[in-house]
Amino acid sequence: MSNLKTIGQKSRLASYEMARCFTNKKNSALKFMAENLKKAERFILENNNKDIEMARRKGMSGAILDRLKLDKKRIKAMSDGLLSIAALPDPVGEIETMIKRPNGLYIGKKRVPLGVIGIIYEARPNVTVDASALCLKSGNAVILRGGSEAINSNRALVKILKEGLKESDIPSEVIQLITDTKREKVKEMIKMREYIDVLIPRGGASLIKMVAENSLVPVIETGVGNCHIYVDDEVDLEMAEKIVINAKTSRPAVCNAAETLLVAEKVASLFLPKLLSEFEKMGVEIRGCSKVKKIFPVCKDAIEEDWYTEYLDYIISVKVVKDIDMAIEHINKYGTKHSETIVTSSYQKAQKFLEEVDAAAVYVNASTRFTDGFEFGLGAEIGISTQKLHARGPMGLKELTTYKYIIYGNGQIR
Amino acid sequence: MSNLKTIGQKSRLASYEMARCFTNKKNSALKFMAENLKKAERFILENNNKDIEMARRKGMSGAILDRLKLDKKRIKAMSDGLLSIAALPDPVGEIETMIKRPNGLYIGKKRVPLGVIGIIYEARPNVTVDASALCLKSGNAVILRGGSEAINSNRALVKILKEGLKESDIPSEVIQLITDTKREKVKEMIKMREYIDVLIPRGGASLIKMVAENSLVPVIETGVGNCHIYVDDEVDLEMAEKIVINAKTSRPAVCNAAETLLVAEKVASLFLPKLLSEFEKMGVEIRGCSKVKKIFPVCKDAIEEDWYTEYLDYIISVKVVKDIDMAIEHINKYGTKHSETIVTSSYQKAQKFLEEVDAAAVYVNASTRFTDGFEFGLGAEIGISTQKLHARGPMGLKELTTYKYIIYGNGQIR
Repeated sequence: MSNLKTIGQKSRLASYEMARCFTNKKNSALKFMAENLKKAERFILENNNKDIEMARRKGMSGAILDRLKLDKKRIKAMSDGLLSIAALPDPVGEIETMIKRPNGLYIGKKRVPLGVIGIIYEARPNVTVDASALCLKSGNAVILRGGSEAINSNRALVKILKEGLKESDIPSEVIQLITDTKREKVKEMIKMREYIDVLIPRGGASLIKMVAENSLVPVIETGVGNCHIYVDDEVDLEMAEKIVINAKTSRPAVCNAAETLLVAEKVASLFLPKLLSEFEKMGVEIRGCSKVKKIFPVCKDAIEEDWYTEYLDYIISVKVVKDIDMAIEHINKYGTKHSETIVTSSYQKAQKFLEEVDAAAVYVNASTRFTDGFEFGLGAEIGISTQKLHARGPMGLKELTTYKYIIYGNGQIR
Repeated sequence: MSNLKTIGQKSRLASYEMARCFTNKKNSALKFMAENLKKAERFILENNNKDIEMARRKGMSGAILDRLKLDKKRIKAMSDGLLSIAALPDPVGEIETMIKRPNGLYIGKKRVPLGVIGIIYEARPNVTVDASALCLKSGNAVILRGGSEAINSNRALVKILKEGLKESDIPSEVIQLITDTKREKVKEMIKMREYIDVLIPRGGASLIKMVAENSLVPVIETGVGNCHIYVDDEVDLEMAEKIVINAKTSRPAVCNAAETLLVAEKVASLFLPKLLSEFEKMGVEIRGCSKVKKIFPVCKDAIEEDWYTEYLDYIISVKVVKDIDMAIEHINKYGTKHSETIVTSSYQKAQKFLEEVDAAAVYVNASTRFTDGFEFGLGAEIGISTQKLHARGPMGLKELTTYKYIIYGNGQIR
């Protein structure tokens, strides 16, 4: 039997024990982990250094090194994260509704953990801690498969997390790390339907696509955000400018940053010159449609591919549209169903946009940057779902659970 | 461009129109359809006859012929089904919660249709009508792919359904049938991620497995039910007998019928002889473990494979277990997470079973046969989900929807 299959079987068994674990015990484990992380700072940094050294020797880019690197501050942030998850309410066990049927059966809908969750991620070691904590609190067992470049950091972190489990008398198999970093192991993992209930890939678009297209285990797709802002012709232009600049530049590398600006024809020549000059000054590259080029000739030409692209960078594509209908059509065609904003003073158009745009989060007069578990009041987040099944938008603890029907009878037959 | 891609694009566009369709209009279409079905009885039966003739010529089994066959009564049942779906509340548009965040953003969770639903099914023409009606009422566009053996019936039924759409001014592309019955078309359909949001295969285990293992579109798996009844030692044996007989024999071919009986060691020799003799009289084949054989020597030997098998027939596997722990272990190992029952008088064991058995529906003192959309009060049913993502157990209109976040701001930036 392969090593992975053994891991799967152990996780499945541990998941049954987790499903009935009391909240107190889970919280106690999270608090032990938080403490242990800080105590083991030196051990973690030593192991993280090995990864950093190896990445440097392999000539990896500065961006990857930054994602990989841990320091005192980041360790403290992970530790604080554990405490804040301990402080959140536990969704497991809630009977959401219970009805009495005409035949006397009481039928209740009870919130339960998903079971075993597989997390496939890349260079960020903090995912090891965050994802484990969220799965633990929501009563799930977790199988972690982090990137090979972070293997020493991940081993160290999982060792510390497991100590926290032990101190709270929770089986250590609740958190398992696949330490074999060969690529084939991911391929094997995503076929393990008997042992893994849900896979959540966290990372770049290519990782997510690979998992979604090859997995036999149900997948929750997260994170790809080709987000739009539509500036209507009935509009407070000052507010529109603030929102567009914030959505594009406050943190361009994240999925809720805006990528395309759509502007109503009537206000384009009034709105764009000042805004686009501002962008130029900030070092944002502008790729415009032909109408934008007429208004602001120094920008680049947008090609068809631009409308599909999540730049995650200081680049924005800009298009002049006839009206809100054309804006909605564009968004529903090119968008990734993540976050979309209209800026308008019109009641009718605000309502129309909310109704007709097909996305996880649809905004009126606010930056797309708010799509986030913390900003939405979920307290934490394992990712932002861009699919429609199960959960949409930011996923917190509740989204890591499902339900089962429980039925109290007294001899009913059919 | 392939014919299927055109169908997909049309469905996607139609789905946007459906998403904002008022309930009145949807109900009006359902009522027109109900009326038209009855009016077109002759047309439907003529076309159904062609399918029956062809199936006979191909030498298909009586069971398939029975599934395929329509008659006055079945047409009336389909028509009545449409009216009862029209009478159900529309889940679309409900804002389930709306919170005000500290920064003044109002964030609401609004129920919306899934979009485009693909239904892949086999010989039953009534699925064409039922599935279309459920998708329509829940605001979705539907792409139907029925079995080749029912193609004439399906064409006729879809023609009539489309007339109902037209009479209510709903785009006819909301319901589309793939009339090309070549097998490759299914393979093409299940890769259409851009056009189909969810696939629901309805039919035998092999169809569902094929779709689940090859689809790039998210799938809701339905129907496979290897259901158990555990008879505890603290028990009203008369009630236990009634429940076991009902769960096994009232309709053995359906997914919520029981397949395996687990009996606590302490009551096995008291309980089994009478029950198993009863089963023998009813023509139920018994496959027992070694301990059952000692108590009731005329039964067959159960082999390991039996514990995994959904017989869908007058066959039952029977096992003596030490206690409730062993029963739960058996169920969680061999079950398909469908419906499981304990018969007991013990409060503690009832609660333990409800807590620890991992299935869509877990019962105390009632037949597994109640797992059904109508029995659970959903009013209708598109299938019974045996997976954990999105929906579990009977799926009604609400389970054919998802949600989106709608956010009302007044200039918020982050």
